[in-house]
Amino acid sequence: MPTATSNAVFDLALFSKTIMKSWTLQVSRITDFLATTSDEVLQNETAPGRNTGIYLIGHLIATNDGLFPLLGLGDKMFPDLAKVFVSTPDKSGLEYPSIATLKKYWSDVNEKLTEHLTNMEPEEWLGRHEAVTPEDFEKEPHRNKLNVIISRATHLSYHLGQLIYLREKKA
Amino acid sequence: MPTATSNAVFDLALFSKTIMKSWTLQVSRITDFLATTSDEVLQNETAPGRNTGIYLIGHLIATNDGLFPLLGLGDKMFPDLAKVFVSTPDKSGLEYPSIATLKKYWSDVNEKLTEHLTNMEPEEWLGRHEAVTPEDFEKEPHRNKLNVIISRATHLSYHLGQLIYLREKKA
Repeated sequence: MPTATSNAVFDLALFSKTIMKSWTLQVSRITDFLATTSDEVLQNETAPGRNTGIYLIGHLIATNDGLFPLLGLGDKMFPDLAKVFVSTPDKSGLEYPSIATLKKYWSDVNEKLTEHLTNMEPEEWLGRHEAVTPEDFEKEPHRNKLNVIISRATHLSYHLGQLIYLREKKA
Repeated sequence: MPTATSNAVFDLALFSKTIMKSWTLQVSRITDFLATTSDEVLQNETAPGRNTGIYLIGHLIATNDGLFPLLGLGDKMFPDLAKVFVSTPDKSGLEYPSIATLKKYWSDVNEKLTEHLTNMEPEEWLGRHEAVTPEDFEKEPHRNKLNVIISRATHLSYHLGQLIYLREKKA
């Protein structure tokens, strides 16, 4: 594997494009949510006693930002966010950036990330990511960049399912 | 594209394995949730006025079941579920199967689905799915089976983010 026959019909450019379309769709769903939800509503809890909208948005920015070092694409753009929105739970008393600032960060992180990911060669998706050692990767080669991007796409969707509870209930 | 050089290092078997690992991880997260949540709690709303756990589980079974025809793998196993859990909202008065029955359906659908997906040739992932016409597929070839499975993985995760609200809040 791979055989000549199978290679003949596996279009690597299409493979890359499909991955990017799947990723950017999930990003755009959050972007659309932000564009159609007021700052006031974003301050609310997604359900009684649960994370607020602003915390989840900060959390998603911080985790997407973490993709730069994880995928070997460079340093984080906003390294301070991880302490506030990943290693510390919501409502701990830490000060949050304003929603306007977070919206700007969301846009900046995803613009740069999309640019980097779009420029990746198709083969790179099956390469090792930085959170797995070369020794472990030899044993478990599915722990690659493709696995990471799908996992992060599901992560965006997981929290979007919660954010959507900020919206008015349908009658 | 694809070039001989790039094909040399794109391992199709590893690509398939990575997709399957990503998919089955999302399925297993729901399975684990079901195994650790009481039937009583599953009857509850995930948040005030929102979908119940049992409805979301039925919804996920029905949508996973829909992958058989969508991916050209055969007929649905439980075609009656779509009416109850997809085209009709929760709390509409329709009778639901018991939770024990739904747990069995969940297991059955995913067992058969995994078997089919595991047997797919790597190239098939970039092929057309049944909800897109050959004409549209020619223009938009990213609307393929790979796109569908990633989309359904994010769908599972979206609703898991809501189901998790059935759990006790951390102190």
